[in-house]
Parts: sequence; C-alpha cells; structure tokens
Amino acid sequence: MKIESVDFFYLSMPEVLDIGDGSQDAVLVRVRAGGLEGWGECEAAPLPTIAAYVCPMSHSACKPVKHSVEGMDLNEPADIHKIGRHVHANSFDLLQADHTLSGIDIALWDLLGKKLEEPVYRLLGYKKAYSKIPYASQLFGDTPEETYEKAKQSGGSGYRAVKFGWGPIGRGSVAEDAAHFHAAREGLGTDAYLMIDIGTVWGEDVASATGRLAALKAVNAYWLEEPFANMALSAYSQLADGKPRVPLAAGEGCNSYVQAAAMLDYAGLKFIQIDTGRIGGITPAKRVADDAVRKGISYVNHTFTSHLALSASLQPYAGIEKDVICEYPVEPKQLALDITTNKMTLNSEGRVEVPEAPGLGMSVNRESLRKYIVDTEIKVKGALIYQTPAL
Amino acid sequence: MKIESVDFFYLSMPEVLDIGDGSQDAVLVRVRAGGLEGWGECEAAPLPTIAAYVCPMSHSACKPVKHSVEGMDLNEPADIHKIGRHVHANSFDLLQADHTLSGIDIALWDLLGKKLEEPVYRLLGYKKAYSKIPYASQLFGDTPEETYEKAKQSGGSGYRAVKFGWGPIGRGSVAEDAAHFHAAREGLGTDAYLMIDIGTVWGEDVASATGRLAALKAVNAYWLEEPFANMALSAYSQLADGKPRVPLAAGEGCNSYVQAAAMLDYAGLKFIQIDTGRIGGITPAKRVADDAVRKGISYVNHTFTSHLALSASLQPYAGIEKDVICEYPVEPKQLALDITTNKMTLNSEGRVEVPEAPGLGMSVNRESLRKYIVDTEIKVKGALIYQTPAL
Repeated sequence: MKIESVDFFYLSMPEVLDIGDGSQDAVLVRVRAGGLEGWGECEAAPLPTIAAYVCPMSHSACKPVKHSVEGMDLNEPADIHKIGRHVHANSFDLLQADHTLSGIDIALWDLLGKKLEEPVYRLLGYKKAYSKIPYASQLFGDTPEETYEKAKQSGGSGYRAVKFGWGPIGRGSVAEDAAHFHAAREGLGTDAYLMIDIGTVWGEDVASATGRLAALKAVNAYWLEEPFANMALSAYSQLADGKPRVPLAAGEGCNSYVQAAAMLDYAGLKFIQIDTGRIGGITPAKRVADDAVRKGISYVNHTFTSHLALSASLQPYAGIEKDVICEYPVEPKQLALDITTNKMTLNSEGRVEVPEAPGLGMSVNRESLRKYIVDTEIKVKGALIYQTPAL
Repeated sequence: MKIESVDFFYLSMPEVLDIGDGSQDAVLVRVRAGGLEGWGECEAAPLPTIAAYVCPMSHSACKPVKHSVEGMDLNEPADIHKIGRHVHANSFDLLQADHTLSGIDIALWDLLGKKLEEPVYRLLGYKKAYSKIPYASQLFGDTPEETYEKAKQSGGSGYRAVKFGWGPIGRGSVAEDAAHFHAAREGLGTDAYLMIDIGTVWGEDVASATGRLAALKAVNAYWLEEPFANMALSAYSQLADGKPRVPLAAGEGCNSYVQAAAMLDYAGLKFIQIDTGRIGGITPAKRVADDAVRKGISYVNHTFTSHLALSASLQPYAGIEKDVICEYPVEPKQLALDITTNKMTLNSEGRVEVPEAPGLGMSVNRESLRKYIVDTEIKVKGALIYQTPAL
C-alpha cells in the first residue's frame, strides 16, 4: 500500500501552566493507507513540529519532512526504515525534523501492525512482550516535609518504584538536597525503588553532582537522572567514575540514534532513557535498545503523556525481560487521558502489560479530542500551507 | 538598555532549487535596544525557526524562545551569556530553539558592539584579529573530467584553498571516488590546499570511509570533512585511527556547545567546523574555539550564505593566529549578496580581514531585501501570533 495522507493535530489544555508537566499539550499524527489508519504522538512543541512538516524547501538537505513521507510504500518494516533514512538525508539541516518524524514513525508502525495483524513488538523481532514495573514520577516538594508527605502517599498507592525530580532540587545547598533525598526514602520505606531526577539543572558542572553522591548512596538511589545537559558526555563520564558509585540515567533529550549511541558509548550510563516521541520514533529507539543489550546498559522508556505514547515507548524494549522498569504517566492532564478510549492499566501484580492487539493496540478517541483542538493556520506567500485537518 | 524588539524576516530567492546550496533562503533577525539595532542570521529552515520564537508554551522547559529574550537587559557581554542560559533552561525540550537563538545571539553581539563602539572580536576578549585564508567550496563534477575542469578554473581564480564536496562522491565505487580526488588535485596543482567534503553520506559506515583513505592520502587532502552523520562519535574515532592518517573535519551540524565539546573530546578531529548560525550564535562558538585551542584542534568557520553570517562566523576565532583557514561563500545566490551593502572582499594577499567597525561591521541593505521577503502569517486559535514585520 501507499501512504495516502499524513495529518498533524495540535491539541492543548485550555490553559498551559508554567510547570514541568509535558502532558498539557500534544501533537498527534494520523497516517492513512490502504483503508487503515495509524496514530502516533510527537513529544514536542506543536507549532515548530508542524512547521517542519509543511515548510518550503531551503535546499537539498533542508526539505520539509513531508517530502520524504507522502506517497511512499508501506508494506513491511523495511519500508519504515527507508522512510527514516530519507528524512535524514533530505532534512538533516532542519533541526526540528526528528521531533516531527517521531510521531510519523510511530503512526507507521501502528498502521503496519494493523495491516499485518501483529502487535508492533513482534514486527520489531521480539517473540514475546514482558510486563514492566511502572514507576511513578513526582515533583519534589518545596520543603523536605512536603517531599516526605508525597513519598508516603506514593508508597501507600501501591507503586514499587517512585521517581522524584525537579522542584527545588539541585538549586540550593548539598544539605538541603540531602534532606529531600532522605525525606523521600523515609516516606517510601526501604523496599521501594527510589530514583532522583535533576532535570539537567547542573548543566556541565561535575562538582555540584559529586557533592550529592554520598547522600544519594545513603538513600540507596536506584539511579540519578539527568544531572547534566543531554550530550554533556565528559561531565557524565567523570561523574560515572565518582565515588561513591551511583548509577546514572539519561538520554531522554536524544533526538537521533547517533546521539543515543554516543551516550551509550561515552557517558558511563547504567540506564538509557529514550522517548520514542523525540528520537525519531520506534525505529531508532529499537536500535538503541539492541545496542544497550550488547553493552550491558538497561533501557527505560521516557513517557510523560498519553497511553498511545506509552504503548509506543514500550515496544522497543518489550522483549527484553531483564529491563523491567518503565516510566508510567501517573497524573497526566485530562487531555492525555482523553487521547485513547482504552488504557494500559496496571495488572493484578501492579505491572504494565504491552498491548497484544495489532499495531500499538490503542484506540484514539476522536470525539473527546475535538474540544482540545488548537486551530492553527500557516500562510506563506498568501498560500495556506497548513490548516488544522478534520479529526 | 533593555531589548525592545526582536523581529524575524523570512527571505528567499524566487525559486529554490533542489541542490546543496544553503544561500537560497535566509532568516534575518533584527534586535532593537537603546536607539540602536543589531542584525543576525540563522542558518536554518525559516518557518520552523520563526515558529520556535513565537509558539505557545508547552510546559516549563518548552517555552517559545521569545520568553527568554524580550525585555532583557543588554549592557555587557555577561548579559548575552545570561540570555543564552535562559533560553536553554526555558526551551531545552524545543528542538528548533538553538537555531532560533543563533540569529538572536549574533544580533545581540552586533548591537552591543555598536553600543560599546567595539568590534565583536574585542568584546570576546581578543586584542587583535588575524586575517584568514579563504577556501572556495565547490560541488564535485558529475564526471572526473568535469571535476578536473572545475579545479583548473578554481586554481586559476587565485584561491589557495579549494574544497570539493557532495555531488556523486561517496555514492559509487572507491575507484570512481579516487578518480575524482585525483582530477581535483591535478586541476588545482600541487601547491593548493585541497579539502574533500562527503556531506555525511556514509552515515556511520566506517568501512566506506577507510576504503577511500589511501586515495585521499595520495592527493594530499588537507582534510576529509563529514564522512559521517554529526555526532557519530564512534565512527569518527575509528576512522581517525585508520591508516593512512587523513585529518578529519566536522561539526557544522552541532546545535549546542555540549555537542561540539563531545566532538572535540571523542571524535578524533583535527578541525572543528562551527556554524554560528546553528550552534546558538557567537557565544557558544567562542567557547568551542577556546576549548579547541586547549586541545590542539583547529577551529574553522562554516559559512555558506551572506557576509553578515561570514563576519559573525569569523569573530569566535578571529584572534587565533594559527587557525588561518576560513570558509568563504564563493558563489552565493544574489539574495545572500544583497543582504549587506558592504562586503568582506579579499585583500591584496587574497586573505579575508575581520571587520574593524563596531559590532559585526556589516550594514544590512533594507532596500534591496524587500523583493526577497516571504510574507508569512501564523494564526493560533484565531490570533495572529506571527506576521512578517516591516523591514
């Protein structure tokens, strides 16, 4: 079959708050071919992402993403790989292109799975999908007391793994951060996995990070996430060699396979975190997962939005039994919940199961999305080159 | 003074061809403060770049670039550094943001130089600017005979350094490529610097590259440029260790300081090529130049467009006497020529001199640009959030 149409939808909550919650808006992508449709989601700023799909060509290596997608064949996995290669060859000077490609690639796998009547993970070569242990992501409280209360609540809600991040952490003294780490551990109890996310606050400042290692070790942190900017390889590798040893996790900012490969090769990570909505989709994410297995690094998804994005983000490592942890959007905004009619709810063991239905196994809820549509128009030289399509 | 306005202009030739010529369109940025104005240029796809400036906020780390710029103080270099840090903190999940920031940062240095009545290179800490030897960039011919004719013409036109790239190279057999390399050297004569640019065609395929090393060595290639995708660190470092040794050059695709630092640390390069219109402007480019000096790697600009971009691209290494080679746009489209009233013509020794006038030392030619304006409108929820401003 041939790709007949690719439609981008910009969705948003009525009000977007200045908080670290990426589920307040969304870019959905619908691809149609052979009487079927596939859906994907970009974890990206909607307007630049749409602009990268429709913009006029600047030169041979700076073409709009649509140039490499529309009218292409889609019959087998190799066709999706080919489309990704074309996008890179034709758009490598268009920075936003990888974020745009991400939602398309995900939708293509969904569509191909529906056509071939297989879940995506099988098309990727896995025989079986293993359930994952979800971790709940939380912001640190403003005070250690608040962090303790939040941790206590999380521990009580049945999550075996909880990540605290952002908020005041990394911005004050070592003692202040240590108080938050201890409060989190005390609230959770000793058995739960506790992860700490710095949200890149230290940039490339290794000393700020090493100063916190003792406290992180004392609370038995399962990982320390994004102490530095994505790709700050030298800082990561210095910290990885620091004492005491605390496992490092990073990678969500990677927007291509080669960047993630560089993180695997040089950053000294124990966990590579990939957002399929940013790295260019499921295709490059699966390559990263394969590399991670070879290098003895654990793969973890990065997902903060809908269950469509969650299903997409689990496929690349669905078949890796030893990589059991997954990020699970615990308190997404209503928009993210309304994107699909079905949900990946936790099973009786509190684990997340990868859908067995064809494609990504998620049904997009057209009706409920209409109220979130952000009507958008882009005109160039008087011609309307983008207008919100009909859902 | 405070930044009063930041205006983006999308300019284009009447027709954009599907060729490797990045001078066919342009994104100009004008910043006004204190009765002065500064100009910069993004080497980027215009529409997504403008969208990244004006888009609605998605969350706290995915804000439009304008959020971190408008109304900020601009009195000394530290203010420009601060704006860059703000953009990274507020927009690190907005992929296109670095390309957008690039033109703004350049305009800010231009504006500050005008206010302080100093050329930008002095504000960067250099006492003196050293002239550079320009190299002419050319596409390979379709046949070795054509390549020979082009090389002969370049050699005759007085350039002491010529780079051949793109076209058929890297896509056929080793013997075909070798014939092109020899034709280029024969046409140029033995004295000229000859550089070869693969334009990332080999992706991460080290074997394709090592197969060509002998021929590159035989023609005494000054450097081999971008055999692989930007950030394909492992491929670069393997090739750097290959025999015979051919110096590697890369980096033009870096859109942040940390990416360029990773290339310096791990890719085994002899030359780091930075486009100030992509990396986030002059500020991060200067950090790269400082690092390169410490690591014994030569800095080279990447510039394919206007003399405004050329001046901006030379400032970060203007004071490094030993780094003598510069890229010089030899046959830009008329648009790129029309951007400035003055030009950085070659001096009597055939060298490029960094302007000594305040700021970037280039005057934007408003009148001549009107005919290239691409009228653009972006509407979100019925509100016009971008409209081409008055020049």
